[in-house]
This record gives sequence, structure tokens and C-alpha cells, in this order.
Amino acid sequence: MRTLIKGGTVLSPTGGTSADVLIEDERVVAVTAPGVFDNADTVLDATGKYVMPGGIDAHTHMEMPFGGTFSADTFETGTTAAAWGGTTTIIDFAVQAKGTSLVSTLDKWHEKADGNCAIDYGFHMIVSDVNDSTLKEMGTCIDAGVSSFKMFMAYPGVFYSTDGEILRAMQKATETGSTIMMHAENGIAIDELVAQSLAAGKGDPVQHGLTRPSILEGEATSRAIALAKVTGSPLYIVHLSAAEALSAVAEARNEGQNVFAETCPQYLYLSIEDLAKPDFEGAKYVASPPLREKKHQADLWRGLRTNDLSVVSTDHCPFCFKDQKELGRGDFSKIPNGMPGVEHRMDLLHQGVVAGEISLGRWVEACSTTPARMFGLYPRKGVIAPGSDADIVIYDPAARQTLSAETHHMAVDYSAYEGFEITGKVETVLSRGKVVVSSGTFSAGTGHGEFLPRELCQYLN
Amino acid sequence: MRTLIKGGTVLSPTGGTSADVLIEDERVVAVTAPGVFDNADTVLDATGKYVMPGGIDAHTHMEMPFGGTFSADTFETGTTAAAWGGTTTIIDFAVQAKGTSLVSTLDKWHEKADGNCAIDYGFHMIVSDVNDSTLKEMGTCIDAGVSSFKMFMAYPGVFYSTDGEILRAMQKATETGSTIMMHAENGIAIDELVAQSLAAGKGDPVQHGLTRPSILEGEATSRAIALAKVTGSPLYIVHLSAAEALSAVAEARNEGQNVFAETCPQYLYLSIEDLAKPDFEGAKYVASPPLREKKHQADLWRGLRTNDLSVVSTDHCPFCFKDQKELGRGDFSKIPNGMPGVEHRMDLLHQGVVAGEISLGRWVEACSTTPARMFGLYPRKGVIAPGSDADIVIYDPAARQTLSAETHHMAVDYSAYEGFEITGKVETVLSRGKVVVSSGTFSAGTGHGEFLPRELCQYLN
Amino acid sequence: MRTLIKGGTVLSPTGGTSADVLIEDERVVAVTAPGVFDNADTVLDATGKYVMPGGIDAHTHMEMPFGGTFSADTFETGTTAAAWGGTTTIIDFAVQAKGTSLVSTLDKWHEKADGNCAIDYGFHMIVSDVNDSTLKEMGTCIDAGVSSFKMFMAYPGVFYSTDGEILRAMQKATETGSTIMMHAENGIAIDELVAQSLAAGKGDPVQHGLTRPSILEGEATSRAIALAKVTGSPLYIVHLSAAEALSAVAEARNEGQNVFAETCPQYLYLSIEDLAKPDFEGAKYVASPPLREKKHQADLWRGLRTNDLSVVSTDHCPFCFKDQKELGRGDFSKIPNGMPGVEHRMDLLHQGVVAGEISLGRWVEACSTTPARMFGLYPRKGVIAPGSDADIVIYDPAARQTLSAETHHMAVDYSAYEGFEITGKVETVLSRGKVVVSSGTFSAGTGHGEFLPRELCQYLN
Amino acid sequence: MRTLIKGGTVLSPTGGTSADVLIEDERVVAVTAPGVFDNADTVLDATGKYVMPGGIDAHTHMEMPFGGTFSADTFETGTTAAAWGGTTTIIDFAVQAKGTSLVSTLDKWHEKADGNCAIDYGFHMIVSDVNDSTLKEMGTCIDAGVSSFKMFMAYPGVFYSTDGEILRAMQKATETGSTIMMHAENGIAIDELVAQSLAAGKGDPVQHGLTRPSILEGEATSRAIALAKVTGSPLYIVHLSAAEALSAVAEARNEGQNVFAETCPQYLYLSIEDLAKPDFEGAKYVASPPLREKKHQADLWRGLRTNDLSVVSTDHCPFCFKDQKELGRGDFSKIPNGMPGVEHRMDLLHQGVVAGEISLGRWVEACSTTPARMFGLYPRKGVIAPGSDADIVIYDPAARQTLSAETHHMAVDYSAYEGFEITGKVETVLSRGKVVVSSGTFSAGTGHGEFLPRELCQYLN
Repeated sequence: MRTLIKGGTVLSPTGGTSADVLIEDERVVAVTAPGVFDNADTVLDATGKYVMPGGIDAHTHMEMPFGGTFSADTFETGTTAAAWGGTTTIIDFAVQAKGTSLVSTLDKWHEKADGNCAIDYGFHMIVSDVNDSTLKEMGTCIDAGVSSFKMFMAYPGVFYSTDGEILRAMQKATETGSTIMMHAENGIAIDELVAQSLAAGKGDPVQHGLTRPSILEGEATSRAIALAKVTGSPLYIVHLSAAEALSAVAEARNEGQNVFAETCPQYLYLSIEDLAKPDFEGAKYVASPPLREKKHQADLWRGLRTNDLSVVSTDHCPFCFKDQKELGRGDFSKIPNGMPGVEHRMDLLHQGVVAGEISLGRWVEACSTTPARMFGLYPRKGVIAPGSDADIVIYDPAARQTLSAETHHMAVDYSAYEGFEITGKVETVLSRGKVVVSSGTFSAGTGHGEFLPRELCQYLN
Repeated sequence: MRTLIKGGTVLSPTGGTSADVLIEDERVVAVTAPGVFDNADTVLDATGKYVMPGGIDAHTHMEMPFGGTFSADTFETGTTAAAWGGTTTIIDFAVQAKGTSLVSTLDKWHEKADGNCAIDYGFHMIVSDVNDSTLKEMGTCIDAGVSSFKMFMAYPGVFYSTDGEILRAMQKATETGSTIMMHAENGIAIDELVAQSLAAGKGDPVQHGLTRPSILEGEATSRAIALAKVTGSPLYIVHLSAAEALSAVAEARNEGQNVFAETCPQYLYLSIEDLAKPDFEGAKYVASPPLREKKHQADLWRGLRTNDLSVVSTDHCPFCFKDQKELGRGDFSKIPNGMPGVEHRMDLLHQGVVAGEISLGRWVEACSTTPARMFGLYPRKGVIAPGSDADIVIYDPAARQTLSAETHHMAVDYSAYEGFEITGKVETVLSRGKVVVSSGTFSAGTGHGEFLPRELCQYLN
Repeated sequence: MRTLIKGGTVLSPTGGTSADVLIEDERVVAVTAPGVFDNADTVLDATGKYVMPGGIDAHTHMEMPFGGTFSADTFETGTTAAAWGGTTTIIDFAVQAKGTSLVSTLDKWHEKADGNCAIDYGFHMIVSDVNDSTLKEMGTCIDAGVSSFKMFMAYPGVFYSTDGEILRAMQKATETGSTIMMHAENGIAIDELVAQSLAAGKGDPVQHGLTRPSILEGEATSRAIALAKVTGSPLYIVHLSAAEALSAVAEARNEGQNVFAETCPQYLYLSIEDLAKPDFEGAKYVASPPLREKKHQADLWRGLRTNDLSVVSTDHCPFCFKDQKELGRGDFSKIPNGMPGVEHRMDLLHQGVVAGEISLGRWVEACSTTPARMFGLYPRKGVIAPGSDADIVIYDPAARQTLSAETHHMAVDYSAYEGFEITGKVETVLSRGKVVVSSGTFSAGTGHGEFLPRELCQYLN
Repeated sequence: MRTLIKGGTVLSPTGGTSADVLIEDERVVAVTAPGVFDNADTVLDATGKYVMPGGIDAHTHMEMPFGGTFSADTFETGTTAAAWGGTTTIIDFAVQAKGTSLVSTLDKWHEKADGNCAIDYGFHMIVSDVNDSTLKEMGTCIDAGVSSFKMFMAYPGVFYSTDGEILRAMQKATETGSTIMMHAENGIAIDELVAQSLAAGKGDPVQHGLTRPSILEGEATSRAIALAKVTGSPLYIVHLSAAEALSAVAEARNEGQNVFAETCPQYLYLSIEDLAKPDFEGAKYVASPPLREKKHQADLWRGLRTNDLSVVSTDHCPFCFKDQKELGRGDFSKIPNGMPGVEHRMDLLHQGVVAGEISLGRWVEACSTTPARMFGLYPRKGVIAPGSDADIVIYDPAARQTLSAETHHMAVDYSAYEGFEITGKVETVLSRGKVVVSSGTFSAGTGHGEFLPRELCQYLN
């Protein structure tokens, strides 16, 4: 079974080339000058379009338990929405509940995902409970293809790890070559500010932002970097939102430390002004770290250009406004944290290309190639090359669309980007050689997506 | 009752002048050109000597409870030793035990000190237990002349405060204009390293240093600065020992934040090589933060010159080698933390003058004038000026002495500076006009020293 | 002949004390508690007033030749105006013309000043011509009490020295312990921008600011610091106006290099908006470096607080609007560079105290004590202490005044601060024991002021 | 005419893939999974070998006039040596002599190179003479495919440009989108140190290093960055050798400025100890900037990893020891500046891979892909992709060789790396599809190499 994509501009981190792509079954078998091959079972005409490696969203939370509810997208709806938006791989988080084992957690997440995903998927492991047994299990996880472990400096009592626990996990990461991912906010100090805000009768969504100052994200980022330096561990800062944190990352990277960071589209395009929208509308924008003052946005774009921010992920964690976000009316601390976004990352970042913030190559790199290399999926994913999985997006850079909850495919009742006008649109998506989205129809059966066991990070010095 | 000090060079932070000093009872009444006054009840000839404001040691721990024992110097022996060494004021720490009140703690410390001190003394308050009641008591303490509050980022279970507790205390400090003093080491991470070291059978004193890496002092210092920035609180870093911490302080000071730091003679002159001395000898040098690698010393001297280190205190907290330090044979974590030093600060820092590390004026400033201003004692203390307390040292810059436990006056059975050859020596010491040390004899009766209620820090921007 | 100043608050860099000051002839002989002395030939009541060391303006240009004209104040009018404003010492610049010798230059300036000054004065030497002979003469100058040498990185063809010449002079400064003062602007690049501006028909005064970007002051400052590091020379940056330059100075100081800087009141209070005033009014504000955008002001105040800016001088160099400034109508490059200010420095900086930007002690330090120590005049000047010159200002902190060309004493037809409302006013001024200004009258005969041979900088590490 | 390279590992900046490469005439037409194509006119077996884009050396000086002599390699010998070492493109420098035009200079260099090169080549233009006419000619050069202009902050009287001239050229670069390349050493200050050294009778080669302190490279680099910031010009620092310069580049890049830098193998592997070799042996290592103290090497490797150093070039500029280097016996300033190296760059940097300093992908990136993108040659050069020139190296990572003047192909009588043992060796080299080196024989006729007109830099933000 051969598929030929003809006439397009094949993109990579270093730019674009006119080339055809020949696929056999699930893999790319050749990238050629136009016209070298002519026939195939399926021929897709990409004239005037980009032919790019499918997006990799390294930070999603499908059907994640949170405060008695679950994030609104199942693996089925979430991966389908991802595919619609040109993302062909997600790496979701298995969430260890305190007192349970990592291995049983992983089993549970396999169960949730297995047979339900439209596209390929991997897992990171959230380690909530550091002890001799879970540290040992980190090795088992790595053997099982889960080579990155997320910890939290926020959410005491839930996910929070002490600096001593972080240190122990980092020592294990150093020993195994795996990566520690960090939610870097000083949750202990923040929770005090939250309590004070509530005690003062200030319960509106905007308080979510005001009680989580960017200095405390900068602080926690610096602390994580210091602990990583003490232990020698690779460190990946998730959802970096603040200039102070960026500056800490940049300094560590200049010194050659294995420190990496991702940001998310919401921090590039939205701000605390959205959190301050009246009539509880701000609740739609409650996520942690919070949306920041607008001035941070320019710094984040610059960080993307300088590679101090290496990856753009979504931290997709949707909760419906009705019934879910509404749990926090009058008490912002009860609003489920998270925003939908897995469907729009490729489009939103393409706007950065249109606006001249980043180059075409950088778009591909930050959204696909780097996450693949960062999380041990390269060259299977993240590149269009012989032998690689045929995860390919044909993207029309000239099309126009308007984002809206009316039209999106995520199982959530609002869009954080309602009304955004976008230049560019996904036309066709292939996952492992199969056309899953084409001309506005979705054609992947449930369960096309496979679990991706991952290697270690491919960036370490 | 008039005393006249004639013929000396009167020192201040800006240098020296030939001048006579006239004292009436407890106060200086005139500083004059030589010979303006001729007669007095007592005339002290200071020809060829320095006439300088008495030293202020802003960091001592007399008879401090620690792990079932007490630091070896009582207020009586400790202040007497201080006087011998040219220090005429100490600021000691009242130590709140968890579950007790600040006010009762202060009462207890007044009881210990009252009537027993050779020289004047004040108190800082160690806040171990942050809650609504103790936060309120901070105000009471300030009214009672205790305007600085020390907190610990180390020693979990004993003095340790969480970042949330620190935040609350800092908010109170901002509200009242008082100062938070910080023991800045990441004790949570350190205790993990300590446990690992002991588990690995490594119990020698040098492990005390190896398990407390300088990066973790730098980290905690940065964190304290961040919390101070969030709250607006003045911050004073105690016993700074590491280049990483100095660099964090310098950066905050460049940005105009109210951040100050002290170092101690042991960090300027001793190193981890002392901790590594064989036969448990290293135990003599166990204090926290630990003695560092030698390369830090040059940075600390530079910090003293640039005023990023504003004060030199001793952190005097002596434990006898026999019976006390020995509690930790085989388990360094059981060695009482602390070193003797209150007697030698002025002499040791004078070596910095002799060696060209600091100027004469800087010696006076770091050891007397700045601590007075930092802790609300100026101009009563820290300067020779009309109206000021006649706390005056006549110092012979040309004398020679050798430091030794044989000859020192501290109630401890070893000297951390055994055999150090010193240029310069205290000749005469006056405390509030009274000669307490003169020609090698000590003449203050017990109880000459008075409690000094203090104003707020006089350095705030 | 004895003078007694009674009842005031005597100021020093460390704060204020209630004390009386006894003067005998030209010198202070005693500082005493109130009432120790009662009688004197003259008794000045300072109740409710500050009694402070007279101001030292370390940067003035009296009757300076510039482009065919001379700065409008003679040594007589300029020093008289200084005295009116509470400044009792100026350090002016002898200006070497290319091809002449330093010694003959110094002679010429002595001639100008000798017998014409109301207050004491010293000289720095501007070195325009670096060669074997002038380098040798630097030693002669130091012996003659001129221990600081100013060089220019701007004004090619006039004062400009190449980096090679600067290097040579710095080597000589290192050898002799003298100080290199630097006008740090990249004049070579600036002159190109000036030529382009004029060629484009843009000749208004505001172009003076636009063609001298702050980056090029930062650049030259960094370069001077690098050359000082290569040679080991002390370096004093004059009239620092830009945040970029401040940041370079702060970094060098953190590293312990002997680098110092002054700013001027005009950079603290005025901005490029003044330069942009219509009808050629902007010409009044043409000086180099130019007035900057307002945002730099907060940085400069912060630098004053952190001591990265150690001194406030005026760079007093007045040219009348009529006939002098007007030389540059239509061609801003022909406007004589300089602004009047020697009379208002103490008052303007007192506004910083009133506004809470700096402390009372810092006012005295930056305007008097530090310039004295920086330029080898301490303790003769810069302090009220036995043996010091009785250069004393009685300052009424509560008086109100409005600055205006109508009322000022400088020989220039406009005020850069016209209409500024000031809190505080000089009441009485003594120069070497003689009352020169009192109750609104000036009583020094011409020629009271004496030349001050200076020692080397007293700040070197 | 088809060539097939089979069985190798095809390298790119992101890593390696097992793939075959099909070439038709001069271009790559397909990159395929192994075995997709079987037949071709020529089949090269690359089993166990790397198949990589040919090296691009962006900094060479063939037959360059210097002080009355010429660098020893002609375009023929130099490009042949390059080919032997796996470099398939050089960008050499056309050198404007003062008073001549850029266009005539370019003509002259075309004449030298045309028909004489073994591999493809481009030109940068050295601008020695900035004036209205040459600024205009910059546009002509760009149209002629020369889009980068080198200037010198060193060598006054020869190549040196003033900051004003640099500013003007940078303005033109901004206007045209072209790149200014900078030799960043403060030559004005350095020449003074050189003169002093010679005057003191110190004429040995090591003085070349001692008179060019790294601080003065850091200074000039900072200055060039400041001028680029004022003008908005892209800036490329050539042959960066010093930690101070690296730090300036890293800071500018963090801030998102279009600043780039290259280093050279000699700065990574050699040091001032080589310059200090006795018997005038040090002369072999005289180049500018000079070889530095060893401690800089670790910083440069780190810079390569962090991409603050983006490119490795050679600055190949060989002069024979006999007759050429010897011109400077007794006077190091007369030693022709430059070292041979074009042949060994790929091998030397591969040692960095072997030693774990850089990854395999980074080797390819710094030596081939980035120079292609930096200088407007991508995707024609710097990548193995359909449509790209078939400039391909088959590299045996396991082979062993020893570098020596006996065996190298450069026309120079010594090797700077004499006796270096190397792991890895070029096996086969194709230039535009033609095998030019194979199994130890060189088979390109003179004149195979073509001139490469270049686009603008492809990295600009």
C-alpha cells in the first residue's frame, strides 16, 4: 500500500524544499525531487501546500481526575481533536495517586488509552509520592517506554513534592538518564496568598492570577535548576509563563546545564486581562501558572526564537464552563485548573510565522521535531525521512478560518480563542500512513493510535 | 566624672583623625582637636593608638539550648570575652521554642541576661512558630525594642519555617518596618543528603560540609530574596558563606532591593580543609552553613569591599570539644552546630586591614557602625560623637599576639584559630564610659551591661 | 577668633546628631554635646537647622574656552554662586590645548583662579594630548596637587583620545595611583550620526539628543572599564546619564574593580523633552551626554541609593542663551555644550531627600563626603570634625524657594530649573571659618578661596 | 548519470538515519529507505559509514596578500586540501585594498579563483575603505552574490575601520539585509601594547599573545554588538577565541539580537603554550586573535553546545615557517598572521564527538548546515535532500590517522596539529555529484569548483 504526496514544500527545522514523499504502509520510504515517482495507490496533491511532520503535543491531560471531576476530553475525543489540528502524537500524563504504585498507575492509563486513540500516544509519569519503592519503579517505567517524570512544586497535599523528594527523584533521573519535568511554582507561598485572598472575601477568577505572582514562578524555576545542578539531573520546565522563569532558564542554558523549557499558546496570546473578564467569564482562563500580564508575551516569543524555550505544548486540560468551571463560583480556588487547546496549537503558532515572530523552520521545530528529540521519539517521529512514521500534515498556509467552540472538536463547551481569525489551516493529516483527516472529514476509526514506548531525551550534553 | 582620651587617632567609617575624646559619665561630650581639654578625672593616653567605636557583634548565641545541651558561654562569660576582644555590644538571639509565645521567650531571655552582662546587649527574636498569635506578638516585640526576627530555611522540625510561614512573617515585617533575618540553606534538601551520607556509613565531620553544598545556600538565598520581593520586606541574610549566595545578594542590591548580608570571620579564614582534619578534630569546625572550599574566601573579601556584605558578625555559638562536640562521634549530624569567636572578630578583621583586603574605615564600618545602623542602635552606638555612649576601644595596631585556647576568655576548651598570629591588640575598652578592660585586666563587675531597646533598621530605601 | 554654631543637627553620611560646633579661625576644633561651650566671638544659632559639611562640586568649568567662546561664569562669579548654594569647594578642570604642556596649562588656570575665588578650589587636568612628555608631566601635576586626569572618548579633533592614548595614560595612572576620569561617549560613531542628521536638514536642538543614543554611552563606559581592567587603573566616569552605562559600572563594581561614577542633577530631573522645547528653547539644555528619556531617571536615583553612583556633581558649564547658545541656531552641533547648575546642586538633591529617594545621610555623602574622599581632600573637607576646615553650611530644611534666572547668582541669562519649587534653603555658609553667605547677603571678599592641593583617591582597593 | 550511496547512516543536525542517497548528475534526487533503488551508474557502499553533507568552511584566505607576501595556499592547492578533509565549499575573502573599489576587488578575486578550484566557493568582501562609493557598491556586491562584508577593529592603517565607518557600513547592511562580519579586537589599544613590548626588547612569538589580552577581544565584541544594536544590523563575529567575547555574544543572543559567532579548531585545541614554544617554533601558531590560555577552551566547547557559537570555520591562512613566518624573527609583529587548517576541521571536530563534547548532529550542524544557512547557501548546500547539490562526504568514524605536514595536502611546510591522533577519516568526497576524493586518491580536475552566488543570511529574526 503506497501513498505519494506530490508537489508540496516539505518542511523541516532548517526550512523548506520542493519534494515528493513516498509512503509505504506506515512508513516514509523516500523523499525525492518532484516527479521521481509517479504512481501510488493514493496520490495526494500538495501543490501550494506545506508537507510537514505531524505535530507532537508533549503535554496533554485527557480524562484527568481533578478535584472530583475529570478533564472533559477522553482519549478518544482529545486525540481526535488533536488530529483535526494537525497533531499526530500526544504525550499524556499518567497520574500517580498518593499511596499507589507507578506501575499500577501506568497500567490504569494504558487501559484508558488503549484502543481509544485516533493518533499515537506516549506517557509521562506524574510522581506524587516519592519513596524507595516508587524510585525503584522509575526504572521499570523507563523500561516500559516512559522516560520522563513530572513533579510539582505546587499543589501541596495533592501533587506537591518537597525539595528533598525532588532531590531524590532527580538523583534517580541522573542515574537512569531520564528527565525530570517540573511544574515550577512555589505552591507553599502561593497557597498562603490564596488563603489570604479568600479570607479577604476576594473570590473572583482574576484572584487566581493575582495570588500566583510571576516572581514565585521565577523562584521555583531557579530552585529546580539548583536542585538539578546539585544532582546532575536533566530538567524540563513545563508550561513556562513568566519572564523571570525564562531568565533563569536562559542563564542555566548559557552555562551549559541540561535545562529545557516549554511554553504554551495561551501564554503567548492570552493575558490576565482574560482572567479578569466579568461575570465569571474569567474562569475559562484559569490554569496554572496563570495567564500573565501582557508584557510577558514579548519575552516568551523572544525565548522561542532564542531556543531558551525549546518546545510549544498545550497543557491541554479542558473543563466545561458549565458544571465544571462553575464549581468555583465565588471561590476561585475551586475552579478546576486547565484550558482546552490541543486542537489549535499548530494554527496558533503558525500565526507567529505570519506575524514574523518565528520562522517557518522554527514552527516545525518547536511543535514537532524538538518534542520528538526531547522525549526520545526521534527519528520515528518529528521528521519526514525514510524510515520515519508517515505522520504527515498537509497544511494550507493561505486558508482562513475562525476559531470557535461551535466548530472545534474538543469536548468542551467554550473556546479560549473564540473568534480568533487564523491564517492557515490543516488540510490533510496522515497518521502512520493512514489518512485520518481529509477535506473536512475525519476517517480514523477509534483505536488507530498506538502506544509509543520512548527512548531517553536525545539532547543531553 | 570625666574621662579624657588623648593623643589617639579617632576612627570612623570614613577614616581617621587626630583628636581627643571627652567623656562625661556614660556619654561622649566632645571630640576635639588635640589639647583643647587637658584635665579630667581619668586621662587615658592613646598616643600611637586607634580610638574607635566599640565593636558590635550582631550575631551571638549565649547559653543557647541545642539538642539537649547549651552553648558553652553564659551571658557572663560570653560578654566578658567579647569585651576582652573589643566588642562592647552584642545582639543575641531569643529562641522561641515551638508552641511557646514570643513574649514569654523574650522574658526568659531577659532573665538569662539581666544583671549578668559585662557589656550592653540587645536581642533579636528567633521565630520558630508562625501563627496568628506570634505574628501579632511581633508588634509587641518591636515595642519592646526587639525589631528583627530570625527565621530558618534549614533545621526542619526545629527552627524551620515553610515558605508560606516566611511569607506571612515578611508581610508582618513590611507592615511594621522590621527586618527578617534569614538562615538561608535549603534544609529540606540538605537533610536528605545528610540521611544518605549516614546511610552510606559516612559519619565523619567533613560530611557536614559535603552534605551542605554551596549551591543550596545560593538557592535558599535567592528564594528568601524572592519572597522579600513579593512581600516588600527588608531582608538580612545571616552568616553568608558561599559565592553563589553573595552573587544573589549583589544582584538584588543592584536592583535597589532592601537586602543586606553579613559574613563571619570563620568563612573568611577557615575552610572545609579544617572540617576534614583527622581524629574528629574537624568537629571543632562544624557550624552551619559549613566552612567552604577556599576559593570562596576571595569572593567574600571582595563582597566586604563592595558592601554587598555589610556586616561582620561571629555567629558565636561555642560548644566544648569534650562532651559536647563529642556527641557526634561517628554521626556528624549529632555534632552541636557552632563555633566560638566573639572574642576575636575585631582582631581577625584587623588582619584584613594589615593584608590590604579592606581599609581602616571599612574595618570600623563593618564591625561597628553598620551593625549599629542596621539594627537601630545608631547614633547611640557605632560612632564616637557627642551624645553617643562612650563605648570606645583603644587599639594598638602594632602589638602582636597569638590566639589560643590557653589564653582566650571564652568558656570553651578549644580555639578555632589556635596559633593564629595577629598584628594588633585591644589595649583598653570602655563601655558606657566605664573602663572594663585595661592593661590586661578585666574590671567590669558583673551586670554593668544594660539591655538595649532598638529602633528599626536605619538603612531602608 | 572663635565661632560657635549652636543648637543644630550636625549631619554626616551616617545621619544626624544634636551637637554644637566650635571653630577657631579656619578650623573646627570641637564637636560637642549641646552647651559644652557657650561663648565665642561669633555665635550662630542653628536651632531647627542642619549643620552640614559644605558641598563639594567635583565637576565645574569656569570661564572654559569652547569653540571660540568661554563659559559664562568666571571663577569669581561661579564660586560666588556656588557659595550661595551651599557649595564650599569646587574642583574645576584645567584644559590642556593640543600641543601645549600640562604644566603650562596648570599655570594658566592658576592664574585665572588665583585671587578670584570666593571658596576653596582644586583642579583636575584635562589631558588632550598624550605623548611621552605629557605622560611624564602627569607626575608633576600630582606633586602639584592635581591627582586626577580627565580624558574624552568624544569630541574628536578637540579633546578626543584614542584607546591607545587612553591605555597609555591609564598605565601612568596605575603607576602613580592617580585617577582617570572619563567622558564616556563613543564620539566617533556619534559624530557620524550628527553629520547624517545635519545632512538630512535636521538641525534642531533635540537632534543633539537623538544623535547621541544612550547605547553609545553604555558602550564607551564598558570600553573604559575594559581598558582600566587591562591596565589596573582607577576609573571615574563623569556625568553618567544612561541606564546602560550605570549597568556597566555596577557590574564592574560588583567584581571589585576600582570603578566609580558621578551623575548630575540635570540627569535626575530633566529629560529629552526639555531638549525638544520649541523655538530653540531646547538649546538651553544642550550638554553632553544629552538629557535622556525620562525612564533613565529612576535608574539613576536607584544608582545613587546603591552607591553605584557615588557622587553628584554639576558639570556646571554655563553659556548664555543670547549670543552663545544662539551660535547653534539651525545647526545644533554649533550650540556650546553645557548647562549652568553649580548654585542649585545642594537644593536639588535635598528634594531627593524630601521625596524619599535618598536619605539625609546619603545627601551629605554624595554631595560632600564622597567627593572629598574620592579626590583626596578628606578629612580636610567633607566632614565636620576636629581639625577639618570649617566649611560649614547651615541649611534650613523647612524654607521654601523658587529657582529662577531672576534671582540666581550665576552669570548666565537663563535657569535650567526656572520655576522649580524647592523645599529647603541655605541660610549661612562658612568657608574656612569665615561667614561668606548669611541672611541673604554675600560677605566674602574676592580671593578668600584658596587652591587645594589634593592627595590621591582615598577609595582604592 | 546516476550515483547511489548505499547502506550508510545519513547525518543531519538532528541525528542519523539508515538511508540510501540517489544522485542524478549534480543533484540529490532521492533519500530513501535502504534498498528502494538498486542500480545506478556508480554505486558507493557506505556500510558502517556516515553519509553527511560536505563541510562548509566559511572563513578561508587563499593566496591572500599580507605584508608583502601571500598566504601559501592558492585556490587550487587550498581547495584541494579542503576536499581531502571533507570540505566541499569554502567562502573566501575578497580583500579590498584602500583606495580601490569593491567591484574591481571582486573581479580580481574571481580571476584568481575562476577555473582553479576543486570545490565550490563563494566570497565575502573585506571592506577596508568606507566611503559613499564603497557603501553603494555593497549593493552591487549583494546582487553579485556576495552578501556578507567583513570589517576589522584591528590592524590600523591596513584593514581597520573606525567606529564611525563601521556604523555607516552597518546602516547599509541593515538597509540591504546583508551581514557585517567582524574581526573584534581593539587594535588601537593592542598596537600600543605591541609597541611597548618591542620597545622593551620583547620580540618573541609569545608576545603576540601577551600583547593581545582577551579582555580586548571581549571589549571589541561588546562594542560591535552595541554598534549593531544602534543600527539594527546583523552581526557575525569571526574567529571568537575568548571567554569574555563569548559572554558578550551570549548576552546579546539572549536578548534576541541578530548576533552570531564562529570559533575555529585552533582555539578549541591549541593554547598560548604553543605560542611559547622555544626556538621561534611559536611563530607557527601566530594568528589573530591569538591562542589563549587553556581555560578558555572549555568555555568555547560549551559555547558550541549552547549554539552561542554557531559555526566552526578555520580562518585558514597558511604561511610557511621558512621564509614567511621567519620574517618575524626577533620582531613578532612582523610574523605573518595566520595558520593552516582547512584540511583538518572536519576531523578535529569529530574528536569533539568522540570525546562527548558535542553530539553527532551538532558536528554536522556547526560544520555544514549552519554555515550554509548563515551565508545564504541553504538548501543548495548544507543538507542531503532532494534538489540539493550532491556535496557528500562518506566518513569512516572508526578509521585512525595521524596528522602531519608529511601527509597533509596544504601547501605549507608545517602542521599546527603535528602528531595529533585522530579517530575518523574521510573516505569519499563528492562535489556536485562528482567523486573528487576516493580511497586515497584525488580525482577532480582543476576547475571543477564553481562560484556560488549567495542569498542573504537565513537566520534573521
